[in-house]
Amino acid sequence: MSVEALHEGRLCDAGTAQSRALHYGDGVFRTLLWRDGAAIDWALHHDKLVRDCAALSLDPPDGQVLADDLALLMRGRSQAVAKIIVARRAGGRGYQARERAGERWVLAYPAPAPRAADYREGVVAALSTVGLSEQPLLAGIKHLNRLDQVLASRDWAADVDEVLMCRGDGAVVCGSRSNLFAVRDGGLITPMLDRCGVAGIMRHRILDCAARMNLPAREAVLHPADLLAADEAFVCNAVIGIWPLRQFAARTWRAPGPVTRALMRESGHPLVLDHVG
Amino acid sequence: MSVEALHEGRLCDAGTAQSRALHYGDGVFRTLLWRDGAAIDWALHHDKLVRDCAALSLDPPDGQVLADDLALLMRGRSQAVAKIIVARRAGGRGYQARERAGERWVLAYPAPAPRAADYREGVVAALSTVGLSEQPLLAGIKHLNRLDQVLASRDWAADVDEVLMCRGDGAVVCGSRSNLFAVRDGGLITPMLDRCGVAGIMRHRILDCAARMNLPAREAVLHPADLLAADEAFVCNAVIGIWPLRQFAARTWRAPGPVTRALMRESGHPLVLDHVG
Repeated sequence: MSVEALHEGRLCDAGTAQSRALHYGDGVFRTLLWRDGAAIDWALHHDKLVRDCAALSLDPPDGQVLADDLALLMRGRSQAVAKIIVARRAGGRGYQARERAGERWVLAYPAPAPRAADYREGVVAALSTVGLSEQPLLAGIKHLNRLDQVLASRDWAADVDEVLMCRGDGAVVCGSRSNLFAVRDGGLITPMLDRCGVAGIMRHRILDCAARMNLPAREAVLHPADLLAADEAFVCNAVIGIWPLRQFAARTWRAPGPVTRALMRESGHPLVLDHVG
Repeated sequence: MSVEALHEGRLCDAGTAQSRALHYGDGVFRTLLWRDGAAIDWALHHDKLVRDCAALSLDPPDGQVLADDLALLMRGRSQAVAKIIVARRAGGRGYQARERAGERWVLAYPAPAPRAADYREGVVAALSTVGLSEQPLLAGIKHLNRLDQVLASRDWAADVDEVLMCRGDGAVVCGSRSNLFAVRDGGLITPMLDRCGVAGIMRHRILDCAARMNLPAREAVLHPADLLAADEAFVCNAVIGIWPLRQFAARTWRAPGPVTRALMRESGHPLVLDHVG
């Protein structure tokens, strides 16, 4: 007899129920902002999707096919968040990947409702008590194994906007849904992502901005004490753009500081530009 | 506008497409053997499912509901493998878990085709080049984040039956789909699972057998050198039962050794009993 499946007690499509995304998280994803008929930073998103697929030995969907999916789903939406998931097709029971072919989901969510104060006065970050698990083969990849982030998102204090997560040696790597930058002596420092963490496209874009602006920028091992000693700090992702930090643990900043403000303007991210003059 | 979703370019049910199993691997699972009208070790499986759900703050489905699902799906199958997945219900975008309620999938797969030699002469294990990521909050839990095991299952040599995986300090923790035991001076040693690995129900059952047989048994940090020095070794899981090791790296054993053979009989696992006299 062949494979059969029940979902909530009802017979369901066995192909869908065998998805390796469901069983193992064997796939990658992108979360992006849609605005006025276009996916913001589409070229960067697609390039990162292709590279993340390669890390899992997965053939990525054609870029035009994804662009067509987005256009279909976004008809009638002026602003929205889209999520693209590419997962390995089912091919029998067991961990062994028998397929390189991916299947794709594209989802459209209601537009985010940004708070002006997050951009104009900054947000509050705290250190998560949940550490990041380290798998060097997956470092930097935006894959579907996200329980670290789910665990870190439980039990936040009400006044906290983002939690920062550390690796085993105590170095800060990223926020639960963002990359992190510190500003020190007029230069940028962002954590190394060689053991864990996601190399997000907004992080990439900010490093490009820094190069254009002749701002020194480097990747480094960044401990909480280094962040406490920073002149400015901010977190970023493709949906929110850049959020300056106004507080981390006992440290407060007047946010955004001058370097962060200049980067916010240079970034060209539409939600950021809505709020910085 | 509400959430909409495409799967492979076609509009699909947005509820299914938002499953937190798909997006984050936010759930747990069980793989079990069905034989002659019953799930082998159902009580142990259900107990472990309830405990694994609790680790993710997830309400488990009622045991009778799951038993009814299995009975419906297994009608007409004398032997099969069943998989139960319990994942958190979707509740908005983002990592934060807003729901404790789980949704369930139950799948039936064709019966395994055991090879008599695996039980009577043993199997070959090799050390995986892929390490286990460590998340103490998830240690022992059979959750849906399984990329470590997917990566470890690539590129096996053709004569290898199972790969053993190590944690960061080099200690051996488990097989890619099994737990590991070494026999030394007439007693059992199985790796500690306080940092990573799954505490499988066959491991549990073997420790119970050892107690009944007055065999000393302990959990310990087990390095590859300790395994090479063992008198006997075996791997186990709920589907295969017990596979004695006849080779690990350069070490060979005459398998099964006397302690392993006694445990195979005492275990009462039907596939094992099919092959040991």
